[in-house]
Amino acid sequence: MDEQGTCVTTSCMSPIIPMVEVKRFIFDCMKAVNTPEEYAHQMADMLSEADYRGHFSHGMNRLEMYINQIQDGVCDNTAFPEVLKDFGATAWVDGKNALGVVVGNFCNKLAIEKAKQFGIGCVSVKGSNHYGICGKYASDAMKEGFIQFNCTNTSPLSVPTRAKTSFFGTNPFALGAPANNDQFLLDMATTTVAVGKIEVAVRKGAKIPETWALNDDGIPETDAQKAYDAAKLSPLGGPEHMGGYKGSGLLFMVELLSGILSGSKSGPHIERWGKLTEPANLGHCFIVINPECFAPGFQGRLEDILNELRSCPPVDPEKPVMAAGDPERKHMKAVDEAGGVRYVKNQIETCWKLSQRLKVNPLRPLSFDEN
Amino acid sequence: MDEQGTCVTTSCMSPIIPMVEVKRFIFDCMKAVNTPEEYAHQMADMLSEADYRGHFSHGMNRLEMYINQIQDGVCDNTAFPEVLKDFGATAWVDGKNALGVVVGNFCNKLAIEKAKQFGIGCVSVKGSNHYGICGKYASDAMKEGFIQFNCTNTSPLSVPTRAKTSFFGTNPFALGAPANNDQFLLDMATTTVAVGKIEVAVRKGAKIPETWALNDDGIPETDAQKAYDAAKLSPLGGPEHMGGYKGSGLLFMVELLSGILSGSKSGPHIERWGKLTEPANLGHCFIVINPECFAPGFQGRLEDILNELRSCPPVDPEKPVMAAGDPERKHMKAVDEAGGVRYVKNQIETCWKLSQRLKVNPLRPLSFDEN
Ligand SMILES: NC(=O)c1ccc[n+]([C@@H]2O[C@H](COP(=O)([O-])OP(=O)(O)OC[C@H]3O[C@@H](n4cnc5c(N)ncnc54)[C@H](O)[C@@H]3O)[C@@H](O)[C@H]2O)c1
Ligand SMILES: NC(=O)c1ccc[n+]([C@@H]2O[C@H](COP(=O)([O-])OP(=O)(O)OC[C@H]3O[C@@H](n4cnc5c(N)ncnc54)[C@H](O)[C@@H]3O)[C@@H](O)[C@H]2O)c1
Repeated sequence: MDEQGTCVTTSCMSPIIPMVEVKRFIFDCMKAVNTPEEYAHQMADMLSEADYRGHFSHGMNRLEMYINQIQDGVCDNTAFPEVLKDFGATAWVDGKNALGVVVGNFCNKLAIEKAKQFGIGCVSVKGSNHYGICGKYASDAMKEGFIQFNCTNTSPLSVPTRAKTSFFGTNPFALGAPANNDQFLLDMATTTVAVGKIEVAVRKGAKIPETWALNDDGIPETDAQKAYDAAKLSPLGGPEHMGGYKGSGLLFMVELLSGILSGSKSGPHIERWGKLTEPANLGHCFIVINPECFAPGFQGRLEDILNELRSCPPVDPEKPVMAAGDPERKHMKAVDEAGGVRYVKNQIETCWKLSQRLKVNPLRPLSFDEN
Repeated sequence: MDEQGTCVTTSCMSPIIPMVEVKRFIFDCMKAVNTPEEYAHQMADMLSEADYRGHFSHGMNRLEMYINQIQDGVCDNTAFPEVLKDFGATAWVDGKNALGVVVGNFCNKLAIEKAKQFGIGCVSVKGSNHYGICGKYASDAMKEGFIQFNCTNTSPLSVPTRAKTSFFGTNPFALGAPANNDQFLLDMATTTVAVGKIEVAVRKGAKIPETWALNDDGIPETDAQKAYDAAKLSPLGGPEHMGGYKGSGLLFMVELLSGILSGSKSGPHIERWGKLTEPANLGHCFIVINPECFAPGFQGRLEDILNELRSCPPVDPEKPVMAAGDPERKHMKAVDEAGGVRYVKNQIETCWKLSQRLKVNPLRPLSFDEN
């Protein structure tokens, strides 16, 4: 979660935008570039969900880039994915260069259908675009009682163990599972951090740990500004002797399931997002499992172990042990209580400019009475 | 891979044991405690494979513990697993407290059959025992052209982010995939390191990185001896600010797929291996995917990206970039060239004592002519 999630002093606060208004604005912007209504809604749901969860780097913040790609003609916002092969519990899909979220939702639903029929389903897709936060797809499947795994390749930003140059993206995946009134939702880039965390450190003028990023020569860099300029992320774990070769293996694993299995672009052949000259042709993988096919009482057992984990004696009593997904749920609760999302000033300004450019109604905050 | 894999000076060399002799010895020991021949062979294949790959901590080194568990009656070396539920591409299995490797092979074969029929298969099992190295099951499925994932829970040794006490095991998983004349095989504990690596550092009198282990208070410990005594491993990534919460999530993910899904023991409820007072009741999960169900030419694409990865310019020209599985293949090649495995003196002595205790022929090294 980035800085915005923890901004609590009134002085740095910008107005609160209710979730419905966040969605309205994204929907209107997407409509303004001739996106079919159904797809515009899907985009609004995805991006607002990222902000709701506190992953601001993947929400409203990305809207302008999606819009630009549509206007530049590198992403086809009217296209719809097509099943190329269907065998048993599996399907291979061509995303047809449609919006990533439209591709993602289509494949996820297909994998859920497969899991209903066969206990597990696996859908691999090429020809897609940036599909947002992995956690959203996991979350949708969890609502129907399933365990869900999904992953995507992304443009090269991370450096494999021992190498000097970027090769993989930040290659995130999510694994989520529902519990009685609870859940486990691990949703993570397989680099130690995303670029956004380094940006935050730059703004704070802070040093960064040696497991986060490398300099141009492939050596761990602890100066945030230099690390930011080099834009070479470490695999989870950091340098080889600290365990980073395992993170490097995770980056490859995600690439294998996303790009190699689907036949999309992969690894260093993926173009830099935001600077696309041709369709991104990303790959994703969706695996859905029905826990009811195994030992009865899955959700109860998961609830128990989640609570047991959270009850572990903490090193610092101020920092209780959390399960994956807990930080995001805390953020969602805060948004609910505040009546909406607080964006940083920059974001509000970008949205205002976008509203002018696309001739849509600007974001309307809660009035001071409501606020 | 531990120290033994890199022991190259003649002075520290013990005799070379041919692979067939390694298997013969394990088979004879298992037979001596009344293991059915078929199961004794499976155990010999598994343990010898671990040594062949250079994972000495999981090979011959464990034989005596398996034998003790059988003689103590906590593991039933004559039992065979039973399918409890079979639905579509999934199955839920009771390991019946059989040998871990017997359970593992049974479930893996079942998952392969499911993948043949449905494109993907998923088998979850409870009531199992320590099943060896995850890479062996992946490897067996890869030989038939499949992508394979498997994982297991293990006895608590690792400390979740922010906690003081152990909660999960080293919870390893493997993901393997075949390529033309090549392969990707990630086989890793989800802790930064296994206890064995700390043991090696103790013998060398070396400091360990702060991402490896904790002291009794849950604080990163860089003194190898103190870390060894505390026996509290860090999740992959190390401390929270270095990314360890992602490793903590991976530990939970493996527990969820192994223990929670199957209904076996889980997390802190698993007894310490080597000190079992009742059946271990471990859980594993096996997922097999047929890449032919997706984009044609999977093995070629995987071969290409593996070679591309290995051709990345390295930071240190003496240390070329590797893919997961490469270190093990290097070790296997060395074993093949040497005509067998070199065990450390301790291991040879332990085997000799075991041969006396079980009244089987001792390990017979290559003769000096052959050597
Ligand atoms: N589509 C893309 O191209 C792309 C690329 C990278 C990341 N992403 C998305 O960006 C988002 C952020 O990724 P990230 O790697 O920065 O996530 P993160 O580091 O904020 O969190 C990773 C995971 O760790 C959990 N977590 C955080 N702190 C914890 C703690 N103290 N204890 C236990 N668990 C904890 C979180 O709940 C989450 O599941 C994700 O939603 C990801 O899917 C998307
Ligand atoms: N059954 C159990 O209870 C249990 C518990 C823990 C571990 N294990 C097994 O122990 C074995 C060792 O586990 P580990 O975590 O110590 O493995 P490890 O750290 O030696 O290797 C982990 C992975 O990283 C790869 N690797 C190593 N160096 C690399 C490099 N420089 N570049 C790229 N890839 C590299 C390896 O090929 C391997 O796939 C595994 O076979 C595991 O399954 C079993």
